[in-house]
Amino acid sequence: MEWFDESCNVFNSLKDIMLEAYLERMRRLNEMPRKAGDVFWWPFTQHKLVPPSAVTVIDSRCGENFSVYKVQNKEYITQQFDACASWWTQGPDATLQTELARDMGYAAARFGHVMFPENVYEPALECAELLLDGVGKGWATRVYFSDNGSTAIEIALKMAFRKFSSDHGILPELLKNNPTESCIELMVLALKGSYHGDTLGAMEAQAPSSFTGFLQQPWYTGRGLFLDPPTVFMHNGKWTVSLPEVFHSATLKPEDTTFRARDEIFLKSRDESNLAGLYSLYVSQQLSQYSTLSETNKQIGALIMEPIIQGAGGMHMVDPLFQRMLVNECRHCRIPVIFDEVFTGFWRLGVESAAELLGCVPDMACFAKLMTGGIIPLAATMATDAIFDSFTGDSKLKALLHGHSYSAHAMGCTAAAKSIKWFKDPYTNLNITSEKSQKMLLRELWDAELVQQISSHPSVSRVVTLGTLFALELQADESDAGYASLYARSLVQMLREDGIYTRPLGNVIYVMCGPCTSPKMCTLQLLKLYTKLEEFTLVKTKMNIN
Amino acid sequence: MEWFDESCNVFNSLKDIMLEAYLERMRRLNEMPRKAGDVFWWPFTQHKLVPPSAVTVIDSRCGENFSVYKVQNKEYITQQFDACASWWTQGPDATLQTELARDMGYAAARFGHVMFPENVYEPALECAELLLDGVGKGWATRVYFSDNGSTAIEIALKMAFRKFSSDHGILPELLKNNPTESCIELMVLALKGSYHGDTLGAMEAQAPSSFTGFLQQPWYTGRGLFLDPPTVFMHNGKWTVSLPEVFHSATLKPEDTTFRARDEIFLKSRDESNLAGLYSLYVSQQLSQYSTLSETNKQIGALIMEPIIQGAGGMHMVDPLFQRMLVNECRHCRIPVIFDEVFTGFWRLGVESAAELLGCVPDMACFAKLMTGGIIPLAATMATDAIFDSFTGDSKLKALLHGHSYSAHAMGCTAAAKSIKWFKDPYTNLNITSEKSQKMLLRELWDAELVQQISSHPSVSRVVTLGTLFALELQADESDAGYASLYARSLVQMLREDGIYTRPLGNVIYVMCGPCTSPKMCTLQLLKLYTKLEEFTLVKTKMNIN
Repeated sequence: MEWFDESCNVFNSLKDIMLEAYLERMRRLNEMPRKAGDVFWWPFTQHKLVPPSAVTVIDSRCGENFSVYKVQNKEYITQQFDACASWWTQGPDATLQTELARDMGYAAARFGHVMFPENVYEPALECAELLLDGVGKGWATRVYFSDNGSTAIEIALKMAFRKFSSDHGILPELLKNNPTESCIELMVLALKGSYHGDTLGAMEAQAPSSFTGFLQQPWYTGRGLFLDPPTVFMHNGKWTVSLPEVFHSATLKPEDTTFRARDEIFLKSRDESNLAGLYSLYVSQQLSQYSTLSETNKQIGALIMEPIIQGAGGMHMVDPLFQRMLVNECRHCRIPVIFDEVFTGFWRLGVESAAELLGCVPDMACFAKLMTGGIIPLAATMATDAIFDSFTGDSKLKALLHGHSYSAHAMGCTAAAKSIKWFKDPYTNLNITSEKSQKMLLRELWDAELVQQISSHPSVSRVVTLGTLFALELQADESDAGYASLYARSLVQMLREDGIYTRPLGNVIYVMCGPCTSPKMCTLQLLKLYTKLEEFTLVKTKMNIN
Repeated sequence: MEWFDESCNVFNSLKDIMLEAYLERMRRLNEMPRKAGDVFWWPFTQHKLVPPSAVTVIDSRCGENFSVYKVQNKEYITQQFDACASWWTQGPDATLQTELARDMGYAAARFGHVMFPENVYEPALECAELLLDGVGKGWATRVYFSDNGSTAIEIALKMAFRKFSSDHGILPELLKNNPTESCIELMVLALKGSYHGDTLGAMEAQAPSSFTGFLQQPWYTGRGLFLDPPTVFMHNGKWTVSLPEVFHSATLKPEDTTFRARDEIFLKSRDESNLAGLYSLYVSQQLSQYSTLSETNKQIGALIMEPIIQGAGGMHMVDPLFQRMLVNECRHCRIPVIFDEVFTGFWRLGVESAAELLGCVPDMACFAKLMTGGIIPLAATMATDAIFDSFTGDSKLKALLHGHSYSAHAMGCTAAAKSIKWFKDPYTNLNITSEKSQKMLLRELWDAELVQQISSHPSVSRVVTLGTLFALELQADESDAGYASLYARSLVQMLREDGIYTRPLGNVIYVMCGPCTSPKMCTLQLLKLYTKLEEFTLVKTKMNIN
């Protein structure tokens, strides 16, 4: 006690220092929303609609959760489940995040970043080998690295157009006459509601929308034939196909468009159905308008699509049968096929690559987001040898002259190598199961009964659930629908207050987890969602009555 | 000894394990070039011209140097100075690399990556504040984060076009009638030889070249008025302006186009010269063709340029007086000005922002590469409040609807915050000096006498040296010039064997260091370069004689 009394000043001053540090940290957290509103220019955000009180202050993240600083009467730090998986990038559970932290330190110390072209270093090679042995297995032989989904798409388009030009006699003629110009106008075949990124090339491959008008990008013209796809969703507990208008006059059997279980949607036996024939016929008719034999100088030089789920377009599940028929018809016309797996890749839909669900392979596929486990940006465009060969020649000018400074950066490749292995290893990812078919799958993460219940809720017009994704669309009038809709705002607010960080797509609300998230944690989020949905409906009903 | 004898087996087996690990590592390094050639698709690379023997195997990097694995009679690991700064990204010395490694581990553990829009977290806020207090000081008020130079440019173009449309009455009319279409065709004013990235939007802002033809990107049209810029370089120890043809008939005094020292090129007093008047007149004449009063539906909606040095175009120094006059004339016509500082930013040219050398500020500027110190990809488009305000409104549809998944990722922002501070702090960067003007500069890194000597070498047609850059163009016949030229290949090979990793731009060879690299290390590289240049010249002369 004597010693303690003597040292009292030291302890007091230590306490003061710690307290001061704590207060300083709280002061900084407290002023952050205002400062953020002053200096940031957030993407996809109308700043006028975001007062400081609506800004989320994130103090840290651990696995699927944020630590969020809040002031309500007094200041405190609380947890939120990152239900939008931070724009669909997130995969790590708390253990993987720790592993990645160690690997990031190591990669920075050992490599930092080093030049890629004509060079090789372990992280890039390991990552490429894992990609070819995983998402590219059975078809891809080459990996082209870039920084994000948008650049990966621009690269894939350049690849596809070269291959098409070379296969259809445009290239030899071109090289003979004038290497810079051609009278041929190349287009993509793509689906309405698709999203491939925000750089101009990626935008050009998308159908016109609020994102593409003169107001957003005066250079956008929409260089595609954009088809309206049939979609599949659950409503009142049942999965059904919703056909676009062009098929409305067709006579179909009920079993063509309704399913007893989700798995039936993916059955290859559907290829023999009437619907398959209808789809095929429709696509081939569309393509014939742009065949080399037709009089137009426009030709379809690539098929590009997000397999199974259109993400940013509103979490629509496209009928896989339709997409399979699209691929078949394009193969028939020697049109290169691009799968945009930026959103769907790496277990997002319960399989490593969504191509597995589709039952056919592309000529090129783009990956990003989850690839690094959600730690830093990295993208890959994978391709077949046939695509690669169309760039081989004696001149550098024939090579693919596209690149980004940090191509195949060691940090990203290290994170990707670790995450790819982690996600598919049953020892590190308890969700991995092997079916009798030996195909690896994630076990079902969303409680079947709860999903059915939500799909039957009067406020819900459709539900899509697959792999790590659970999405619902709120029943809304025409005026409340669409991307700019604020209809879902109050529901989002309720969810955030209950510890679920969601971000709506218009009137679509989704909850997304990582490939390793436990079904128990998923059920907890769904339960909360159901409760808040009830509250939301009650409030809306009251408002309508008054 | 008794104990040692007893434990002998343990030591032996430990030795065996270590030896096996070592052999395994060597085996892997040895097979890497072949495997790399099989699975990678390198950017900007004609694979047919790269046999496994030409592949560089990088085992690690430390500061400015690679450790490279080689086999020549026997296998060994040696050092190479990264003279292309890994596509101009590299800034760290060995100490900063260690610091960044620690910070990367911390950021991954504390944040991983978290969602950006409407959110705030310390690394993003600190990074934005440092950018506004540094490269954006005095003009920028907003920071828009993205992933690389190309995306930063696409964002800047969208910003500029909105601002232009809003200032010139295109927007209100547009919103009234049809928000998706307009009869106005917006173009950029840009310089020939410029490079802004490889995504389509960035490409469209570049003049036609081997990178932009149908062979590379069938969608490229070149949406710009591309002016031929006057350039400045040193030859035979003297700095002179080289004027494009349009100015050849002008009568000029010698002091208008020759300089006693490099600093004179940047003097503001040149604004009073005859040449300044000529430049202005030329630019205003060009602009008048596209004024709102002219009959064409084409309008110049943005000026975009790399201040001072055009990097990928061949390390050309554009006459800063010409660029200043361009900015002045565009201001006069209320055309928003974009500086592409992806290459020039963060001390690359001896000042934090190249705008300082130009003596005028932009409305938007793009940064990437060196911003993170060279560890991972991150980009920023900075803008003034006037630009930001043209996106403010009541609807989300008026906001800038562009974003990338990893916007403002915590890892990149952490690295940028550390590097920005490190580079400008005289205690961590010994190259920082303050001139009498209080402006911070890097001291001269390249030995003046050696530079003069190289510029007088018969094999050298021009030299450009500024900040961390030393570049020379080899004297070559027409057939040996240009991007696809292999003329410099033997010199590059000699340099690599002498421990300098260079990568040529056609017949342009450059040596680049980091902002913290010691002048002594720079002199060493220049000396080696001079020696190899002599050898190269000797070989070429002999070949010509035979």
